[in-house]
Formats: sequence, C-alpha cells, structure tokens
Amino acid sequence: MQRVLRLALKGRGHVSPNPRVGAIIVSSEGRVLGTGYHSRFGEQHAETAAIEACNGQDLRGATIYVNLEPCCHEGKTPPCCTAIIKAGIERVVASATDPDSKVYGSGFAMLKSAGIRVDVGILAAEARYLNRGYFSSRERGRAWCAVKIALSLDGKMAAPDGQSKWITGPEARKLAHALRADHDGVLVGSGTVRQDNPELTVRSVRGPNPVRIILAPNTGIPEDCKLAKSASSVRTIIVTAGEKDPPGSDIRGIEILQLPDRVNGRIDPVDLLTRLPLIGVQSLLIEGGSSVLSSFMKADKIDEISVCIAPSIVGKGISPFEHFLPSSWEERPRFFMNSIKRYGSDVVITFSRKAN
Amino acid sequence: MQRVLRLALKGRGHVSPNPRVGAIIVSSEGRVLGTGYHSRFGEQHAETAAIEACNGQDLRGATIYVNLEPCCHEGKTPPCCTAIIKAGIERVVASATDPDSKVYGSGFAMLKSAGIRVDVGILAAEARYLNRGYFSSRERGRAWCAVKIALSLDGKMAAPDGQSKWITGPEARKLAHALRADHDGVLVGSGTVRQDNPELTVRSVRGPNPVRIILAPNTGIPEDCKLAKSASSVRTIIVTAGEKDPPGSDIRGIEILQLPDRVNGRIDPVDLLTRLPLIGVQSLLIEGGSSVLSSFMKADKIDEISVCIAPSIVGKGISPFEHFLPSSWEERPRFFMNSIKRYGSDVVITFSRKAN
Repeated sequence: MQRVLRLALKGRGHVSPNPRVGAIIVSSEGRVLGTGYHSRFGEQHAETAAIEACNGQDLRGATIYVNLEPCCHEGKTPPCCTAIIKAGIERVVASATDPDSKVYGSGFAMLKSAGIRVDVGILAAEARYLNRGYFSSRERGRAWCAVKIALSLDGKMAAPDGQSKWITGPEARKLAHALRADHDGVLVGSGTVRQDNPELTVRSVRGPNPVRIILAPNTGIPEDCKLAKSASSVRTIIVTAGEKDPPGSDIRGIEILQLPDRVNGRIDPVDLLTRLPLIGVQSLLIEGGSSVLSSFMKADKIDEISVCIAPSIVGKGISPFEHFLPSSWEERPRFFMNSIKRYGSDVVITFSRKAN
Repeated sequence: MQRVLRLALKGRGHVSPNPRVGAIIVSSEGRVLGTGYHSRFGEQHAETAAIEACNGQDLRGATIYVNLEPCCHEGKTPPCCTAIIKAGIERVVASATDPDSKVYGSGFAMLKSAGIRVDVGILAAEARYLNRGYFSSRERGRAWCAVKIALSLDGKMAAPDGQSKWITGPEARKLAHALRADHDGVLVGSGTVRQDNPELTVRSVRGPNPVRIILAPNTGIPEDCKLAKSASSVRTIIVTAGEKDPPGSDIRGIEILQLPDRVNGRIDPVDLLTRLPLIGVQSLLIEGGSSVLSSFMKADKIDEISVCIAPSIVGKGISPFEHFLPSSWEERPRFFMNSIKRYGSDVVITFSRKAN
C-alpha cells in the first residue's frame, strides 16, 4: 500500500479537485500484474489505468490495492467499480472510504454485491493525509489549512523593519516551492506583498503553480507588484471584506473574492476556508505575515505548520503569531511533531494540530 | 580514540578544573591491555590509571591513546610522561596539545626525547569540545559560554506575564538537567529568580550540581527563594556591579562576586566570563531570561546554544533575545547546527557560533 500511495502522489498538482489515487493489481501468487494512477483531472482513474496496464492478463484471483474507495458513479469517466467487476478481480484492498457524498460506501457496496471481497483501512491515516484537501472539503466543508514559516533560531520571521531575505538557505527555499506545488492555493496578506513583493510561484522544483490568494480587505495590492504583473498567466485572487473593491482589483487577470465584512473590515478565516473549496482550492498554504498567521491561529483553523529554522539570531524582530494571545497559558494551542529533516544548514520541522 | 573520549567523559563534573582525560593502552597486535580515566580532581591521571590497569603486562611495543597531551610537571600527582617512559610504552597517540602553559608541548617533547613516537591530532575537534571549558579558559582567558533555551514552536520562552511552566516535556527537562551537570556553572538573572524561583540543581539525572550564579547588580534575590534556602549546601554566587552589596548578600552561604560598574549598573558579560575561571568556573550554562541572554548575545560571547522546541504556540510572548538588535540584517549572528534530537514530544537542536 506504501507503493500505492507513492503512485497516487504522482498526480499531485494535476488532479485537484479530484483525489490523488494509485492502484496496483497483484496476482494470487503475489506477482504485480499492473499499476496505475490518476494523472490528470478529467482523465482515466487509477483503477482503470491499472487494469489496462495488465494488458489482458487473466485477473481471476487477483487483488487490487487502492488508497481510496473506487467510484461507482458515472463522472468524467465510467465508474471504476464496473471496470473492476468486469475485469474479474476478486478482492479489493482500500485505505479509506471516499468521503464524497456521491460515493461514501456505495462503491464498496457495489463491489461486495458482485461477490468481491473488500478490505478497508490499511494505511488509512496516510491515505487521508495524501488527500487532506479532498477529505477536509468534504468532511468539514472547508479547505485544509497549512502554514509555512521561516524562522531564525530565536523564532523571528524578520527584522523589526520587515527585512527577511533570506533567513533560510537555498535547500529550505526549494522545499518551500515544493510545498506550494503540493497545495491548491497559497495565501499571503497585502502587507507581505508590499514588504517582500513575492511571486508565489513554483520555480525551484517542477510542479504546477498554486492559485495565489491575497488577503487585502482594504489596501489592495500595488499595480506594479510581481503578483499583479503575472496575474494574466497565474490565477490570482484578491480577497476583500464587504462590497468595496480594493485598489488593484482592476488589474488584468485578477479575480475578486468578496466575503462578508465581519469585524472592522477584517476577513474571517472561517468564511474564507469555507468558500475556498467552491472555487477549486481544497488545500491552502499560508505563507504569512504575522497578521494573517495570527488571525488563522485565533480562529483555530490551522491544521499543520512547517517551520524552517535557520541557524541565525534576529533578536528584536517580528514573531509569527505576535497578534495572537491564547485565553490562558493552559489553553495555548498544542501540536504534535510529525517530521524533522535537515535542509542544508537549516532544519524543517512539521507539526499537526492536536485537540487541546 | 572514540572510546578514549567516552572514557574521558566519565570524569565529567568531578575533575574540573582539571581536563577530562581517558587513556587506552594497546599492544602491537592491537589487543587492549588496559584502560583508565581521570575520575576525580586530585586523584590519579588517566595515563597512570591505564598503566596500572595493565597489571604489569609487558608494554614493549605498546601504544597509549589519550585525548590530551600527557603532563610533564609534578602537580597533585607525578608527571604522566615519566610513567609512560618508565612503563616502556613505545608510541603515544594524542588528540590535542595541552593548552596549559605548564605543559603546552613540553610533554610531547619529553616523550620524544625518550625515543617514543608521538602522533597528535586524531579527533582533535571532538577532544577540544570535550574539554571546551579547559581550552577556553586557557586559550581565550574566559569561560566557555553555552546557552539553553526552551521555546514554543513559534519561538517564545514565556507568556507576556512571564508564565513558562512547562513549555517542554519531562524528557527535554531531563536533558536540561544533564546539561547543568555538564557545566561548572549555571547562570540566570534575578528576574528569572523572582519569576520562576528555580533551584538550578541537577535532579532528574545523576551528576554534580553546578555553581549557581545569579546576575543581580541592583536587585539581589529574595531571602525566601529556593536558591537562598539551599545556598549553604550548593555553591551560590550573586554577581554585582560596583561596590554596593545587593539585597540577599547576607544570606548564609551566598558568595558575592563584585565586578566593575560599566554601564548603568549593568554587568559586562566579558568581565564576568573573564573572572569565572579564576573562581573555578571554566564552562558556563546560561538559562535565561531574555535580558541576560540579550546582553551576552550583544557582547557576542555565546559559544553554543541548545534550543528545546516544544510543539505548542504561545503567540504574543517573550522572545529569548528581544533586547538584542544586530547592527544590520547582514550582521546578524550566525551559528551552525550541530545536532538534532527528539526528546519525547519536543526536539532539541544544538548550534555553535560561526564567525560572520
């Protein structure tokens, strides 16, 4: 199943809003007969790709391993369950039930009623994480929310004047680009646009650009910033609160997402995360700055944090969540550590949210 | 030589101000004939201990491996060089030259003039680190200066009201005690004494208590704090600036170290680090708070930093070096990463100072 997950990952960045799915067909003797994965939105699903890869070999007694429940509804492609049944496969081993209301167990039911043995739950957590945006949008009605921050060893994002280039080295910045490619959307506040003038595209690794989302309830973005200049080639959305169009909204290619004006022209993170799946963004990567980070932490909607720690000292400077204060010391948000990895002279630690 | 260093480490906490030394005697066929280490100040040196452990075996053709140049002067024990020559050992492999002016190459010269082959430099960096306090006090005329900080994942030591118990879990706190046992002295400011009322002793691991040093140029320490109460059993020093005795200086067992009043009653870190070896503290561990940490960073006298990172978010709170501002972004102090290790739910990263 580990190999199935690796196969599924190949679809990263190309299949959304579809899930990433891989499939491996194994004979009763344990020989791999064919593999497949969902490679691009609208194209063949993993299961049918794996069946095709078997090149007409006899599939009686064979098992198909797949990280998500096979679909049973006619979509852009015929249902995979039908293909599995027709191919004569006798067992389906799946990691997780498809949370989409159009499937949600009906696929397994259809397979079982055709006499196929079904086993569910192997590497379920890993499979859910692989499609965290897909699961989050369907189960929680909101986009998955990840955060990437680059900190000095004393926990600072930038000097007091906002200077931050470059805290981390080239290897960690490469990882930051890979993280962008792994999410549907990337978010910054208009302050970061003015301070750093980022491009927010995927450059130092291969991968698709995420949708660029700028929180700019009042300020908008400068017409000559890199985001504005490239808005006609990379999807770019300015998020506003209330009716007023912000400066920069007439820039060619820029989309405007209007959210309710909840508090003093600030955007409610919950409003935004709920709207994002409807415009094709199931997983979001927040890149800063501290106002945006603090407001999402306050809303308690951050699912994971990747912290890149560089071996330097900034001293007095800007902390990532400096506008956030938990209601008490005991109530401070807890995470758990997922992974620790060195990238050149830096280290990257990933944390996932833990219920308090 | 790795094994020699491990042997030497057994003397940790008991041999200071002597260096930690281990020795292994190996026959010409590569068989270990005897091992030894310096176990307690004033007692037998590693080399003579290893020779004794050979129990009179024939040492012709044998090699002694040792992490520091054997001594050639009569101290509390007879010179090791004499013992090596007398034992008939034919080769000495040493990691480093003894920086003490009473030795500093004379040991090697004495061995060579007796016809013994001498090789120096194997695992020199590791051997110097093992005795960093010994080398620092002799080569730089000041104590080695290490820092231990416990931070939330967003780089905060404490909440705005100073609350910090417990940011890290029991495993990381155990490491903190091991760090104390590994240094001659442990330093905090009087603010930390008032806020946290720490004991600064070694409790959750086996090891000797370091000398407890409190920077209290004006404020002194409360008479009922844990440090005051235990001052008669654990050596405790209040450091003051100028002539004035601070409150708490009449507490039984408390020593006073008076330094020049350089700037507004603040203590100059260089003054302190220069004085420490003279009172038996060759290596110092600073445990906070942010005023003390910032002043040592400003003086650029921090040799290494151990950062314990806990998986929680403090938000607005106290940063470790918040009173320090480098002269420019480019001039911010750089370190390099030595080690990364998980301790329960926390991670501990150690950094060493790098020349800018």
